[in-house]
Amino acid sequence: MFLRINRVCRTLQRFPSIFGGALRNNTTSAAKADPALKPRTIFSGIQPTGIPHLGNYLGALSNWVKIQNANPQDKHIFSVVGWHALTLPQNPKELAAARRDMFAILLAIGIDPKRSIIFHQDSNAMHTELAWILSCITPTGKLRRMTSWKTRLAQSRNANDESEVDESLLNAGLLTYPVLQAADILLYKATHVPVGEDQTQHLELSRDIADAFNRAFAPKFFPLPAALITPAKRILSLKDPTAKMSKSAPDAASRILFTDTAAQIAAKVRSAVTDSIASGVTFDPVARPGTSNLLAILAACAGEDVHAVAARCAGMSHGALKAEVAGAVEALVAGPRAEFARIRTDAGYLDQVAAEGAAAARELSARTMAQVRAKIGLT
Amino acid sequence: MFLRINRVCRTLQRFPSIFGGALRNNTTSAAKADPALKPRTIFSGIQPTGIPHLGNYLGALSNWVKIQNANPQDKHIFSVVGWHALTLPQNPKELAAARRDMFAILLAIGIDPKRSIIFHQDSNAMHTELAWILSCITPTGKLRRMTSWKTRLAQSRNANDESEVDESLLNAGLLTYPVLQAADILLYKATHVPVGEDQTQHLELSRDIADAFNRAFAPKFFPLPAALITPAKRILSLKDPTAKMSKSAPDAASRILFTDTAAQIAAKVRSAVTDSIASGVTFDPVARPGTSNLLAILAACAGEDVHAVAARCAGMSHGALKAEVAGAVEALVAGPRAEFARIRTDAGYLDQVAAEGAAAARELSARTMAQVRAKIGLT
Repeated sequence: MFLRINRVCRTLQRFPSIFGGALRNNTTSAAKADPALKPRTIFSGIQPTGIPHLGNYLGALSNWVKIQNANPQDKHIFSVVGWHALTLPQNPKELAAARRDMFAILLAIGIDPKRSIIFHQDSNAMHTELAWILSCITPTGKLRRMTSWKTRLAQSRNANDESEVDESLLNAGLLTYPVLQAADILLYKATHVPVGEDQTQHLELSRDIADAFNRAFAPKFFPLPAALITPAKRILSLKDPTAKMSKSAPDAASRILFTDTAAQIAAKVRSAVTDSIASGVTFDPVARPGTSNLLAILAACAGEDVHAVAARCAGMSHGALKAEVAGAVEALVAGPRAEFARIRTDAGYLDQVAAEGAAAARELSARTMAQVRAKIGLT
Repeated sequence: MFLRINRVCRTLQRFPSIFGGALRNNTTSAAKADPALKPRTIFSGIQPTGIPHLGNYLGALSNWVKIQNANPQDKHIFSVVGWHALTLPQNPKELAAARRDMFAILLAIGIDPKRSIIFHQDSNAMHTELAWILSCITPTGKLRRMTSWKTRLAQSRNANDESEVDESLLNAGLLTYPVLQAADILLYKATHVPVGEDQTQHLELSRDIADAFNRAFAPKFFPLPAALITPAKRILSLKDPTAKMSKSAPDAASRILFTDTAAQIAAKVRSAVTDSIASGVTFDPVARPGTSNLLAILAACAGEDVHAVAARCAGMSHGALKAEVAGAVEALVAGPRAEFARIRTDAGYLDQVAAEGAAAARELSARTMAQVRAKIGLT
């Protein structure tokens, strides 16, 4: 029972980024794709679900910037996927704010409108148009077998367990959102999608749908998108280091938010759960999860190997380690945080970048849709 | 067993017009709506499924023209709903031809772009955009209870019976198309929708979805669309007058197509099944289904009451009645048929009317979508 609930909880924490969990710096292609042959088109999207925490930032968002800056000849398309947010109940005012904030955060962390297309998914109706078309070649059975369907079932009913849920009450968007996700990717003929290790099922469905379209209407029309897979970089709760850092955990001190000040960061790290072993610091996630989590955060912020960091900190007290961690987090987020504070109030700039991104996304996707319409007979 | 199959077959025959089966001249509002209070917005759509037969024409299409011409202050929106056609497998070339032909037929029978908005649904992506949004407030259980879901299940698997079908193989579009249908209607804030007596379940779902949106986001935002209900005008097969005239019946002589020449019409009517009662003509659908069907066709073509027609024809032989019927059908369709032949080859005109209709539809729906987006928080 615990395993099951645990699995549900862990899956739920993944939803802020529907496409990307955590990535390593050196991403590797899991599916067959030869990057040497031609430039890649990389698509990723993130849900507008409030201010990201350190786990979101280190696990997914910072990797978008690395991907953007890695290969100048690649095409990068990053989006805030507002339509996916609708699959769970939302407060409209909060959603509107979160939608703008997430867009501003992408800019603040370094997504560059000159290098990447950055746009609101919900500003390009062709996503839903292609999703409808693809829904007509996607069996409901495949959608019902997606583990996220059952998980969301439970979440949307505030149930502890999937078995408590009456499936018929669940909205259709919850069932079909993987088709919209496939459309998000295929609309741009994306060749690569960053995904966490535990999210390959969704990309597999997108590949299946692309393959089904190609077989039915036009061989090799859609590239089968390959995964940019990396082992998840798990940042754990500061208060319960057996669980991932989560935006929904009751104790706000369990997570560091992207907007936290230096003082807030220091206070939260100071209050982090460690252990009663006083003789220095070691990296031992099983015996010393709290201390190991601090080392992992430090390593991620510094871009270093966790074992090297552990060796360097071996002689430190918990207090000294915490000071080091707080300083490293602050050093990492201070710049983006200030940039976010600046951009967030510049509505004119945000609107302009969003409009230009939407125009670029629409131009690219209009080409795909004109071809799709011709292939299926809607011309 | 027969009843069940029969029900399946009858339901399938309804699909050419998804919104409207058959209508009477004097349409009546079934749901509460006071036409005296304000002008109505009437929406209807028809699938592009090949040349309509006399049953489609008398049962649904000719009523669109009557609705258009009835009330000058009403707004009329008529569409060819290409996206709905995708829920069943289509040959792309045939679909493209059927799509253009159906549009030309609407113009040929008298839908007037100056009085009505006439457009291809699939040229306005906001239909799928609103459908996605509405799918996030529509329980899957409601969709699975739609009788058409089970029927289409059977049809798409070439099964004789619903119980033969593995539901998991059915595509998601088949399950969710009633949500797209609701979006078709609500996108224009339509107040009235022509529906056959046997199609109220779909409109009921559209009303439920409108109500759910209004409750969740904005009271009274969407009008609850009322039915323009009329008893179905059943035109039966010329070869098997126990079944409705159908485009899919094996014997082509069982139906009169909109494009049939006078000679073809006369030949098909001459070969129509009647009965062996030689002593004149009576209207008796149970004892004399074939003869009664001919009288019903004659009455419908002439716009007369069938009993009055029967009285007038009482002394006729079957041969004389058939000549009368063939003449009446030819008189009815000759004009539209010639107009269709003319319009169909005028690609420039068709493209222009379609583009203008799409622009008008988009302008109207963009207003609704801007409001919807603001209400749900996607701004």
